[in-house]
Order: sequence, then C-alpha cells, then structure tokens
Amino acid sequence: MKPDNKNKAEIINAIANKRGFFWPTAEIYGGRAGLYSYGHLGKLIKTNFENLWRDQFLKEENCYEIDSSIILPEPVFIASGHLKNFNDPLIECKKCHFRFRADQFLEDNGIDIKNLDIEEMNKAIIKEKLKCPKCNSQELSNAKWFNMMFPIEVGSTEKKDMAYLTPETAQATYLAFKREFEATRKKLPLGIAIIGKAFRNEISPRQLFFRLREFTQAELQIFFDPEEIENVEENKWKEISKYKLILNKDNKKIELTCEEVNKKFKIPKFYIYNLALVQNFYLEKLKIPKDKFQLRELGEKERAFYNKIHFDVEINLESLGGFKEVAGIHYRTDHDLLGHEKQSKQNLQVLWNNKNIIPHVLELSFGVDRNIWMLFDVFYDIGKEGPMFRFPKKLAPFSIAILPLVNKEGMDKVAKEIYKNLKEKFNVFYDDSGSIGRRYARQDEIGTPFCITIDGQTLKDKTVTIRERDSMKQHRVKIEKIEEELNKTQSL
Amino acid sequence: MKPDNKNKAEIINAIANKRGFFWPTAEIYGGRAGLYSYGHLGKLIKTNFENLWRDQFLKEENCYEIDSSIILPEPVFIASGHLKNFNDPLIECKKCHFRFRADQFLEDNGIDIKNLDIEEMNKAIIKEKLKCPKCNSQELSNAKWFNMMFPIEVGSTEKKDMAYLTPETAQATYLAFKREFEATRKKLPLGIAIIGKAFRNEISPRQLFFRLREFTQAELQIFFDPEEIENVEENKWKEISKYKLILNKDNKKIELTCEEVNKKFKIPKFYIYNLALVQNFYLEKLKIPKDKFQLRELGEKERAFYNKIHFDVEINLESLGGFKEVAGIHYRTDHDLLGHEKQSKQNLQVLWNNKNIIPHVLELSFGVDRNIWMLFDVFYDIGKEGPMFRFPKKLAPFSIAILPLVNKEGMDKVAKEIYKNLKEKFNVFYDDSGSIGRRYARQDEIGTPFCITIDGQTLKDKTVTIRERDSMKQHRVKIEKIEEELNKTQSL
Repeated sequence: MKPDNKNKAEIINAIANKRGFFWPTAEIYGGRAGLYSYGHLGKLIKTNFENLWRDQFLKEENCYEIDSSIILPEPVFIASGHLKNFNDPLIECKKCHFRFRADQFLEDNGIDIKNLDIEEMNKAIIKEKLKCPKCNSQELSNAKWFNMMFPIEVGSTEKKDMAYLTPETAQATYLAFKREFEATRKKLPLGIAIIGKAFRNEISPRQLFFRLREFTQAELQIFFDPEEIENVEENKWKEISKYKLILNKDNKKIELTCEEVNKKFKIPKFYIYNLALVQNFYLEKLKIPKDKFQLRELGEKERAFYNKIHFDVEINLESLGGFKEVAGIHYRTDHDLLGHEKQSKQNLQVLWNNKNIIPHVLELSFGVDRNIWMLFDVFYDIGKEGPMFRFPKKLAPFSIAILPLVNKEGMDKVAKEIYKNLKEKFNVFYDDSGSIGRRYARQDEIGTPFCITIDGQTLKDKTVTIRERDSMKQHRVKIEKIEEELNKTQSL
Repeated sequence: MKPDNKNKAEIINAIANKRGFFWPTAEIYGGRAGLYSYGHLGKLIKTNFENLWRDQFLKEENCYEIDSSIILPEPVFIASGHLKNFNDPLIECKKCHFRFRADQFLEDNGIDIKNLDIEEMNKAIIKEKLKCPKCNSQELSNAKWFNMMFPIEVGSTEKKDMAYLTPETAQATYLAFKREFEATRKKLPLGIAIIGKAFRNEISPRQLFFRLREFTQAELQIFFDPEEIENVEENKWKEISKYKLILNKDNKKIELTCEEVNKKFKIPKFYIYNLALVQNFYLEKLKIPKDKFQLRELGEKERAFYNKIHFDVEINLESLGGFKEVAGIHYRTDHDLLGHEKQSKQNLQVLWNNKNIIPHVLELSFGVDRNIWMLFDVFYDIGKEGPMFRFPKKLAPFSIAILPLVNKEGMDKVAKEIYKNLKEKFNVFYDDSGSIGRRYARQDEIGTPFCITIDGQTLKDKTVTIRERDSMKQHRVKIEKIEEELNKTQSL
C-alpha cells in the first residue's frame, strides 16, 4: 500500500529524524523555520551527492572548484542588482499586523500566480476579496517588496561596513573570475564552481527543503566568448546530437533530439550541450526515472530579467504534489561581470581570440538540499518490512553493512576484520545488536544496498552471505572475493 | 638565501594570490579585512587537509560527522554563555572616536598581556600613558566588553526572531547530541564532528589567516562518561604509553611519555590519548618537523572558564615570528550540555552504564585556515628556480603534472591519454605551454611532487620521465608502471 502524498512527506521526515538524516536546527529549542541540520547519515548522502556532481561537471576540461567567504560586502550586491531587485512581495494585515507573502497567499487561495506582477497580485487580492489568513480581516496593505538578503554589520568602528550573507554562490565566482582566468590556462570556456552556503530571509519558509533560509548550492559558472555560443567540439556534438532531451515547453512535454532543439527553437549548441549534461546527470548518475524528469522552459515573466534562456530541471515529487524545481540552467549573459566592472571600476576584460572581451556566463545551478529531499521522495518504497529507500549504490549513506550473526564464537572477530578492510574503500556500517531480520530491516530503512552476514559457516569455510537490498536475494562468497563481488553489481 | 620573516609572509601571499591559492574576498572592491577566498589550488589543499583530518579522527570507533546550519537561534547562545561572555575589550578614543582592542594595543606597545584581566589592562594603559594610535590623544575610554557575534534578524514579522552566526561549530554539535546518540549505537564515548564555517566580528582582524571574521573549523566533540576518564582500552594505552609528548608547560619545553604525563601531572588517560592522537596527526600525517611543534598548556586566566584542561597545538611560524596556536584540546566538562538542558528545559541525559548521565565533553578543535597558512609557512623553501613549497604528497594540490615536451608529433595525444587515466585516482594537472624548465619551475612553485614528461622517446618505447620535486632526479618508467611507481614513493 502506497501512502498518500501528505503521509509520504511525514513518513520520510519521521525516518529522517529518527535515523539521523536530518532535522530542524536547534530542535531542543523548538526548531526554526527554514533552518535544517544533517545528521551523520544525511551528511554521508549529501557528500555522496556532491561528489557525483563534481564527477559529472568538474571533469569537463578547464573546470575548477573554488571557495569563498559567504559574507560579501555591499558593493557586490549593488553591482549584481540584489539590493534593488532581490525582493519578495510582502503584505501586512492592517488589523493584526501579521505579515505574509502575496504570491503564496494567492496560491493558497487557488489563484494561479504564474506570470503575475505585483500590481496584478494586488488587483487579484482585492478582486477575490481575500482575508488575512490569521485574523480574517479584509484590511490588508498592498503587497510591497521586501529585500530577502540578511544584512551584516562588520567591524565596530563608527562607520559600519555593511555586508550581506550571499544569496547565491554565483557572485563570489564572478568576483574571482579574473584571478582564476590568470591563474589557470587563460582560456575560454572556463568553468568555476562553488559548492557552498547561500541565504535568503524568506518571509514564510515552507515545503521542507524547498524554501530554506540557509541552504547549500552547487553552482558552476561557465565563462565563454559569446561569439562561440554555437561552437561545441565536433566529437562532443556528434555524441549528443541524437540524444533526446525531455522538455516541457509552453506546458507541453515533448522529447526532441539536441539537434532538433537547436534547429527548431534556435537554442545555441553550447547551451544545449550543457542541458544534455544536466539531464544525463539526473538520469544516469542519480538514476531518476525518466517519467519523473523534465526540463521546463521559463517564460519571460518567470525568469530573472538578465537570464536570456532559462530551463529548470523539474522532478515529479509525490510528497510535494507535482513537478518541483531542483536545478536551473541560466544564460546570464554579461550582466554580472558588466555590473561588477562598472561598480568596481576595475577592468574585467580578458584577452581571448585576439580581442579583449567580457565573457558571457552560462550558469548550472543546483539546490543541494532540494536534491537531497528529491532522492528521499523518488527512492522511497514500501518493502516487506516497511518503509525503505532504494538509493543507488553511489548515493546510499552506507554501501555495506557488516552483520555478525551472533556477537561471539569468533564471528565478531572475523566481522571486525572484514569491516576494517572494507572501510578503506567504502562507507561501511557495523551492527551486531538485535535479530538478523531486524538488522536487515534497519539497513533497508536507510537504503544500504548490501548486507554481509558472518555466520557459523564463515568460521568453517571463510565464506559470507551477501544480501542485496532490492532483490532480497542472498548468496555466499569467499571473504577475499567480497570486494570483487560488490564492484560487479554496477546495476544499482 | 632565506627571506626574513616579514618578507616570507609577503612572498607566500604573492604566490598564493597569483597562482590561485587564496586572496582577500571581493578584491576588486579593495577586499575586506578578515574575509578570504580560496582559489582552485587553495580549495584542493584545503580539501586534502580536511580529508587527512577525517582519516585521523573519524576512523576512531563510534565517530561521526554531521552538518548544521550556521545561523543558530538566540537561546543557544544564552545557554552557551556566548551572549554574556564572548567579548573583546574595546577602547574608544574620546577625541577621534577610533575604536580598537585593548589587548592588541598593549601588545603593540610591548606590554605582555598574558594573564591580564580588563581592569589590569586599563591600569596598564594609564600607567604607561599610552596614546591613541590614530590621533595621538591621551583621552581614551576605559576598555569595555564588545560582543563578537554577528547578530541576524530572521523573518519579517514584527517580533523579529533573533539569531547569530555561530562563533564555533561546537554548539551545533551539542544541539544534535541526543538525536545522534539515539540514532547511532547508544554508546559512549560518542564522537561527533563538524567541519564548517564559524564567525567572529573581530574588532581589528590581522595576521592573515590567524584572526579571520569568517573561518572554517574542524571540530570533534567527544562525549564520554566522566567516571570513565581514566579508561582507555588496554591495547590502545599500551600502544601509546611510551610515546613521547612534546609539551610546553609553564613556559618550559619538555618531552615526556604519555605514562609520565599521566602520573606526574595527573592528567587523565582519556585526555592524554587524544593529545597523542593530535600530536601524531601533526608529526605523521602533516609531517611537521618536531622542533616546530609543541603542546602548550594554558593557564587558568588564559583558558575559558569552563575548560578544565586546555592544551593548544602551537607551531613555530617564521612568517608570524614565533609559536602560534593552530588547534586546541579542551576538556569542556558538562558545561555546554548542562547549559542547554537548563535553557531548553529538555532532558539531555542519556542512559549509560545503568545510570542516566549528562556526558562530559572533550573537544578537539582545529582552525582549518590557520592550518593551511601553517602549511605554507612550514613547507616554504627556496629551490633552484626560486620560492617553492615542499608539501607532503597527500597535501599538495596536484600530485602529478603531465607535461608533453612539445604539443605535437603525437606527444600531446599520448599525454592526454595518460592524463585521463591518472585523473581517475589522483589530482592531476596538464600543462603544455612554455619551455620544460619553466614548466618544472611552475610546478615546484605550487608544490607538485611529481612531473611526468612525454618526449620523443615515449613514442618509440612507451616510457616517460618521472621527475621528483625534492630530489629533482628524473628516471624513465614504462607508461603502464607509472601508478605503481608513484605509489612506491611513500616517503613524501
């Protein structure tokens, strides 16, 4: 029996809390909306996700990862436009002074807010005679823009130095661009990635990991010569030209080859190549079922004004009732570098193809926490023993559990020896308490793909039992063949 | 010729900036004191350091890594005492209103501030007739305490929810303790680590990575039963009892075995075991020369009031003119958990040895950025071609550079093939521009231990040249033997 959607989110949360995946930060103080912590299992799966991401996107030529402070000084956000534009539409009830977001308020009242600007939202609220969700009064203020950055006052001198917690990792990358260009090959395209924290003072955070106040982003900014936007190395293009992209364009789901997308929609090859790379990440690396995946193109009103082309990766999540954004591919043009050049009065041009140019930027942006939640939703299942997660081998917090049948008769000694050896190469968990059935169930619940059992026969013939999570099948192998056997099962 | 000390810091900084190790954040806006960014080489060495740290401290039994939001709500810091006690002594010039730190001010005037409290500092300033460092006025305010946390206002409702950027990763661990105890083996000792950001609004940050406003900490909190503080597994104690600790006690450097330290100074075995583990990390994993290392015991006035025993790891750094703290081993007792129990009104006791107890905490705390700077200082050298870093193999940003002698005649093809294969297992850099001598020098400068050159002979007999950074010796090996050869050189 599958749980209903609301139930599913609750079950995932309950398991996550209990087993050590994640929970609200400062839970003993009642927690705080929009702030989460990862327990030991959550940290493992997050690290696995980030490493798969690096594997996919940083193995490309001339791609590098950097790190930055997350406090950035004010001029950065004057240049980027965040100080002026990074706002949510805030309404205040004139009677009870409760404040809330106009767009969410409309959505909650069943009104489609896609493509509505703030004036249209205000009109809709009046037209529908909507009332304060708290005190039911109809005296509501107009929606006004509220800046979502967290201000920080640095230092203690009289003239405070204003700064902000960065709302996206991208800005730190733009600040580092010229240094990195000089320090690397002095070549374009140049990819610079940051996996780091970002912050948004959401008026009303909700939907678990989908609207956090503090979150982790994995972002790759690819700097390129706009004149080369149709250039993709011939062999690379050949490899993908027949690859079918799963698109949602104008609310229609269609599958088209990269070649067709290039010809039909005039989307540049360089953009398409990266779109394909992202789709491949979701389908092949994360093993998301095709029918839960789509690349949705955003309309002009939905996307940021500086994004010339914008597709979101959306995954169909039962726990959240439909397709939700987990990543975005943004053609940000020269908007950011030009802004920083102007504001800083530094020359940010680089020499490429015998010209001095400000490169354009293609941004691949992933919300890491959202993606983690997505994995829980997509790989959730009801097994024989109850709820479980069928995480792919490379994502599961532990690849292997070592289970001595009883904690004596020398079984524990052999088990610890195997544990020690496998620990060098895999994330391994050792569990010697409770019945073996109970222990299998505990491992299924956290998504461990393999259980190795050490029993009486092990002591006689140096074989162990390997149990596969998904088939629940068990077979015996020699101790020295364990590693070979586990590497064989690449299907997971 | 060795550079003088000031020169050394400048040279390191210049190389770091130019080659992509680190630089001040938002440099194009003039940078900001206390905020740094890591370039692609810096990120690699930082990751290497963190992984060695995990290897040393998280391989111990029942140790786990977690992750937390760095925004923590106010009650956390009421409980921890940070709101009340986490202060710097701030002086204001009554004439020009310049503000500065009393302790630094005294130090700059050649007065030893060790063991001085704020009243004594004020007295010393008056006695010495010190003047404002900016306008030279003698009208100075008394030193007053200034809280060093960065406040954050969360949300937009009228009643703002006060929070702070965490000044140490430890607090998040205490908040997670009970959940983790339940989710893991329900056993003590239990180690919980966080490698994460922490923040301090320093009045006047200086000394490069040694007083940052935003920094990374690697901290392990070990929760244990205080009745078991003399218990260390017999075989573990046997292993270290004759191991000599390099101590600085009462300003005297002495070497004593663990056994002697236990008997002579009554320092508990459990504390000593961890002291030895930390020393081993510095001497064996990071390969710091013994004469640059000491474990200095802090006096009562120097250490936090809740620290019952406190040794700092200090490394002699030429660039900073002497021994500097890079890590600390703090016996924090039950101070933090008791504080949180009281403030949160939650029961934080756990069942252990048939009693309900609040565990005590032993904290191993490492400033990651400080340690990175330390590596640059310690492994700096002047080679044949100029400044270079003799980083140990496991710390160097790149283990291997692949250098085709010329970028044609098929050498590039073979080189790229080798690059592709080695990249699966090592951090490898590919460089095909400039003379081979210049390329060796460039690799020496960033500390790459091995250069592999592909030349004319490679095309004939499938051998390459391996050049070792430190010996500068070259020898030829078959392409298929490269990996074996590199693993052989474990000395580095």
